[in-house]
Amino acid sequence: MPNANSLFTPLVESLPSTVPFVGPETIERRRHRIFRARIGANESAFGISPNARDAMANTIGKISRYSDPEGYDLKTAIANRHKISLEEVCLGAGIDELLGLVTRITVKTGTPVVTSLGAYPTFNYHVHGHGGTLHTVPYHDDHIDLDAIAKAAHATKARLVYLANPDNPMGTWHSSEKVENFIGALPKNCLLILDEAYIEFAPKNAMVTMDPAESKVVHMRTFSKAHGMAGARVGYAVAAKNIIQSINKVRNHFGMNLVSVAGALASFNDKNFINSVICSVEEGRQDYYRLASKMGFSSLPSATNFVAIDLQNGDTARAMLTALEDRDVFVRMPAVAPLDRCIRVTVGTTEERQLFSSAFADAFDSLHN
Amino acid sequence: MPNANSLFTPLVESLPSTVPFVGPETIERRRHRIFRARIGANESAFGISPNARDAMANTIGKISRYSDPEGYDLKTAIANRHKISLEEVCLGAGIDELLGLVTRITVKTGTPVVTSLGAYPTFNYHVHGHGGTLHTVPYHDDHIDLDAIAKAAHATKARLVYLANPDNPMGTWHSSEKVENFIGALPKNCLLILDEAYIEFAPKNAMVTMDPAESKVVHMRTFSKAHGMAGARVGYAVAAKNIIQSINKVRNHFGMNLVSVAGALASFNDKNFINSVICSVEEGRQDYYRLASKMGFSSLPSATNFVAIDLQNGDTARAMLTALEDRDVFVRMPAVAPLDRCIRVTVGTTEERQLFSSAFADAFDSLHN
Repeated sequence: MPNANSLFTPLVESLPSTVPFVGPETIERRRHRIFRARIGANESAFGISPNARDAMANTIGKISRYSDPEGYDLKTAIANRHKISLEEVCLGAGIDELLGLVTRITVKTGTPVVTSLGAYPTFNYHVHGHGGTLHTVPYHDDHIDLDAIAKAAHATKARLVYLANPDNPMGTWHSSEKVENFIGALPKNCLLILDEAYIEFAPKNAMVTMDPAESKVVHMRTFSKAHGMAGARVGYAVAAKNIIQSINKVRNHFGMNLVSVAGALASFNDKNFINSVICSVEEGRQDYYRLASKMGFSSLPSATNFVAIDLQNGDTARAMLTALEDRDVFVRMPAVAPLDRCIRVTVGTTEERQLFSSAFADAFDSLHN
Repeated sequence: MPNANSLFTPLVESLPSTVPFVGPETIERRRHRIFRARIGANESAFGISPNARDAMANTIGKISRYSDPEGYDLKTAIANRHKISLEEVCLGAGIDELLGLVTRITVKTGTPVVTSLGAYPTFNYHVHGHGGTLHTVPYHDDHIDLDAIAKAAHATKARLVYLANPDNPMGTWHSSEKVENFIGALPKNCLLILDEAYIEFAPKNAMVTMDPAESKVVHMRTFSKAHGMAGARVGYAVAAKNIIQSINKVRNHFGMNLVSVAGALASFNDKNFINSVICSVEEGRQDYYRLASKMGFSSLPSATNFVAIDLQNGDTARAMLTALEDRDVFVRMPAVAPLDRCIRVTVGTTEERQLFSSAFADAFDSLHN
């Protein structure tokens, strides 16, 4: 029962004190040891665009100023690239903040929402945080089950659906054709978040054309992955004008970081840099595929900057995670069965990959002796 | 009536498409001219700590990493300085984000909230954004009317009250003794936001001791003003553990900027720098007092980095704002009577103050001829 004398809303009273992810720094403080390989949070191992570095360094001297609340320069570059209008873009402090905002404008107590069982926990966190009722659809063969999600959206009268393409934590993906059919199959008054955090690493045919005027899709992109700027907290949403306008009714208008926005703009325009990152990530994925195979495990073909290595059951995967942590290697794993038979390993630097390779072999031996 | 087919919640449908402040960049784009003096947003004219500059420059190379979601290092420094525990501090992207979070955990549709008529519009924006019912109390003699707010809080059964000390937009302040009496006079299940954005510029006796364990006060501090880091978006809240815990249930855990947090920590520890800024601001305030007096106007004694110059009526003040804009000088003014007889001028650099002085005299002449 809500407590009338509580300082907090009944919704907040009802929420658990959990967090979507425990940060590696928290684990390091607990262990009193730092990680030698930080390959658990899908952070980029390939630095930032030199142009972004210069832009950020040069902007530090102007940091006494608030960032333009309209984000005009960066939004203009984004709008031009995607051939959309300025009123169809919104900036945010990474996709995480944008997920919170889109949830806030669509979800109130009891609003039905559909996502996949084991998909991005931060989305679930925001849905719970706004009182939504979350319905989860199991993966099918380690892929998001598009047909089942569309069915669940109708059955539950969902107003909001979440799809990451490529997917996190499995790294699998669907073709744009399949995703477009899926979009067409959703209920009419249902909004789709299409989380494209990893889209740069995916085959060309995974990219859904942005057509915000004609759809109820909110595309979300980030500078945290291919652009290597996770700590800068810049992402953007592309959607129909009325959706962006609704976000603008509630967002923190002076919330963006001046230095980050300057860096993001420079990085956005440095296509050569992004292409080189994509090549390095592809190399790293091949490394992990080979390593897994050498150790007798299969791995999932990935369209992201990480690889899910299949250890065949959850207990083994959890034991491996701990054994890797003991060897100063930070990786993560999916939270629920049957996905939790895998560990999720971010493509690190060559050095980190070698470290992982040794630690993985060593941990494997220790678990089998 | 709510539209059942709307993509958005009834609350969001009901909100207007307004923003708390129009940014100076928006005005510049409209004018096709940039401002020569940007003294309207209370941004610092006195740079940043050299230590903060170095810390930020050195952190750009690590920006591929997410910032520690617990903000451990900065929170530890803050907790030590204020002699409080780590569980009594929360970081945010400036006070604006923290205002949104505290409103979110306390306010739902119809929750009564009290603030002053003409006080910080961003707080009002967040209250409306969460469906709260805002009650406003007029200023008394250009000061926040503490007795009237306490009375209104009881009369309206308010669950949340906002007080900025020193005040924005008037620059006036109350002694800690008066504020502590006011806190004691508030209803029991009512939370007070004590916005201390400008506290560094105030007389020592304006500072209320932080005693989070024993109170329902949320102190809010920022690196945007004295620290000169508005573009970095770092602020913090100090409050009782259960309040911080409730914020932690809904906040964006990976939302802080890695570079900014490093800069804020360095600046926090550079007391000499902050002291020099405080002296420079005091000098600048004296400049403005003298200028106003020379022009035949009074100005309000300020405990902030801006001065409210009293132009005696709202029409004159509005005309002056436009005339200053025409002269490439950006200042702001309070939105409502009787405060709107003033213009609010941020202490700029020596050059900006001279520019303002000439533009003000010139604009005054043009308005009287």
